[in-house]
Amino acid sequence: MTDPSSLPPAATWGRDILDRLELLASHSEGGPGVTRRLATPEHRAVHDLLSGWMAEAGMTVRLDAAANTVGRYEASEPGAPALMMGSHQDTVRQGGRYDGILGVVVPLACIKVLHDAGERLPFALEVVAFSDEEGLRFGTGLFGSSAIIGQARIEDLERRDEDGTSLAQALRDFGLDPDALPGAARRPEELHGFVEVHIEQGPILEAEGLPVGLVTDITFGANLTVTLTGVAGHAGTVPMGRRQDALAGAAEAIQAVERTCREREDLVGTVGKLAVAPGATNVIPGECSFTVDIRSPQEPVVAGAVADLQSAFEALAGARGLQLDVQQRYQLPGCPCTPWLMEQLELAILAQDLPVRRLFSGAGHDAMAMRHLTDIAMLFVRCTAGISHNPAEAITAEDAGIAARVLLRFLRAFDPAQRGGAS
Amino acid sequence: MTDPSSLPPAATWGRDILDRLELLASHSEGGPGVTRRLATPEHRAVHDLLSGWMAEAGMTVRLDAAANTVGRYEASEPGAPALMMGSHQDTVRQGGRYDGILGVVVPLACIKVLHDAGERLPFALEVVAFSDEEGLRFGTGLFGSSAIIGQARIEDLERRDEDGTSLAQALRDFGLDPDALPGAARRPEELHGFVEVHIEQGPILEAEGLPVGLVTDITFGANLTVTLTGVAGHAGTVPMGRRQDALAGAAEAIQAVERTCREREDLVGTVGKLAVAPGATNVIPGECSFTVDIRSPQEPVVAGAVADLQSAFEALAGARGLQLDVQQRYQLPGCPCTPWLMEQLELAILAQDLPVRRLFSGAGHDAMAMRHLTDIAMLFVRCTAGISHNPAEAITAEDAGIAARVLLRFLRAFDPAQRGGAS
Repeated sequence: MTDPSSLPPAATWGRDILDRLELLASHSEGGPGVTRRLATPEHRAVHDLLSGWMAEAGMTVRLDAAANTVGRYEASEPGAPALMMGSHQDTVRQGGRYDGILGVVVPLACIKVLHDAGERLPFALEVVAFSDEEGLRFGTGLFGSSAIIGQARIEDLERRDEDGTSLAQALRDFGLDPDALPGAARRPEELHGFVEVHIEQGPILEAEGLPVGLVTDITFGANLTVTLTGVAGHAGTVPMGRRQDALAGAAEAIQAVERTCREREDLVGTVGKLAVAPGATNVIPGECSFTVDIRSPQEPVVAGAVADLQSAFEALAGARGLQLDVQQRYQLPGCPCTPWLMEQLELAILAQDLPVRRLFSGAGHDAMAMRHLTDIAMLFVRCTAGISHNPAEAITAEDAGIAARVLLRFLRAFDPAQRGGAS
Repeated sequence: MTDPSSLPPAATWGRDILDRLELLASHSEGGPGVTRRLATPEHRAVHDLLSGWMAEAGMTVRLDAAANTVGRYEASEPGAPALMMGSHQDTVRQGGRYDGILGVVVPLACIKVLHDAGERLPFALEVVAFSDEEGLRFGTGLFGSSAIIGQARIEDLERRDEDGTSLAQALRDFGLDPDALPGAARRPEELHGFVEVHIEQGPILEAEGLPVGLVTDITFGANLTVTLTGVAGHAGTVPMGRRQDALAGAAEAIQAVERTCREREDLVGTVGKLAVAPGATNVIPGECSFTVDIRSPQEPVVAGAVADLQSAFEALAGARGLQLDVQQRYQLPGCPCTPWLMEQLELAILAQDLPVRRLFSGAGHDAMAMRHLTDIAMLFVRCTAGISHNPAEAITAEDAGIAARVLLRFLRAFDPAQRGGAS
């Protein structure tokens, strides 16, 4: 069953995968790129396409109470625990055609090969297209995977989209019963683990000439909102030495973020939003607010960076006569991938004659939620120029095919018995 | 006629001046501070108050075709050329009660003293309350003084306010004939010069404990709009070394503006407006635009600073892989005050037992327009914390009284014959 001759060649197999992704991308709300939200006609169309491909691959299909599409390829012994794979079907506004849905199409391509060859494995395979990870329609996020791990937030059902439709009503309109939402939960003993294939959304694999990478951790992050308050004044009449310019202070703070985060390879920091008041050409800024997003796979690294920045901000505010306010808005828990699953994925990468590039994920993923239910691993696929959340998101057919070959090698060799104390 | 015993004491005289300013400030459109726009009921109320005070001071009053209130205190020989004084009656939105109108009330207080004592001078005195300098209602600016110097822009009559009313219609509603606008122009031979009393709008006099200062120049300025374009990306997934972060580049540019302008005492530079795109917490900024306002009394200093900044911006954009676009939006001509008029004002300050603090004006003033018609001088009055264009704008009664005493000494000693080649 591990005869490599039964692996389709990467380029042609990858072409089939990209064709499917192109068809899925055609179900979009319009505008550039792909916009696909929870429980919309576009979501329904994607569910229907996936259902067809799942059936073709010998899988049973159901739409769970959280609008997740769940396919199952039965084990040689029916009812055995499953290895689950998948990712999300939804997108950001005007996103790309790979972020999320690639992690559904690649496993289906693998299972199709198994099914066509009449191969059954000693464990079931499940593939989930999570209904909502980006949270575009209702400001949720990880809605689909949260339901599967039994952490659906019932209060989210009252959230409304921009047209005033509640999430509960949207589920009803989609043919589902919102009261049944808790029923989407899965039990840990039903699963051996969860594997997510996803585009890297960063430039590392491309820079190093590698088609795939092995994720070590999903990032730990902190988000600060910093406000500096000085004194607004006339741009022509206040000498430089007498200014309390909030934006000049913010500029120094932004440089501190950059400097601090450049000191370590496993740390990134971004000032993405900034507002200046009063915001006139000829007025010295009296107030400036900005966000700081800090991420690292290591919680102590994030905490250290936040502490360093707090000190730097206090020092510059003091020197400039500015008031400083720092609000820490949220702190995502760090999420390590599970060693025994990673090791099996690593062997599959090596079997494909590729070096194993370990890297951390700076973005959040469904696997982060799934970690609460079962063991996880993630395979990153090289994407062009590290671009994501953008119509320009791109991967090559060759890389899609290589990812599928790695995943199929992994599935064929997968040994649930390796699961031990290591998780 | 120069007997100092006939000068009212500063504190009580200043109290009278502040009382008048408070009454004028009551004619405001509402909201905090003072909002008074061209050709509005508030403007009419101020015209009526000023007309009454001018009449009390023995002056003739007229509303010219540009809605300027013009009072004339006749010379001992009727029809003689006049020394003109004044400033603007209008304000920014939610401005203060001193910016502009102080320069009308102080001269009226001086002329009242002359009139009460039966003093006539060998030259006429005129006081103008310019209708519009800030340009809040129609986006004009120096509208009143431009008409007096014969540079009314007829095309401005088509400008509309936020309610859609044209400037021409507003003048008609104010009882004026827009076609008569050119008739507001004065001839150079009618005037000996123009003197403007104004709050400093900066902190220098307060810092040095001085009630008044002598303006040397009205600033020369350049305004740049700078756009840095990089590559937007996911805040979690792009390593620091691979970013082309437009806001991080802008932060470095803002520091360059600050550093460059700190090198000289006669140079100020301000980044007052800044916009970031896409402007999300978790997205590396792909584009950042900001304004740079550069001012100095010396044109070469401004030109040198602009050139230095252009080089600094090019260097940082190159190092960061950002595209740079710099637009120079306008360059206000520098405007020196006239030496022979300054000298006479200087003598009046010295006669008040005050040191002469020379300083430049970083803000524009009606005197800047008047310079095209006649010689000019400006007297600055200390204001609290350098604050202007703000409801918190403040001066003391004592300082208002001292400014009036200096101006009255100047008027009594004024010698038009000193005008020579020096202008």
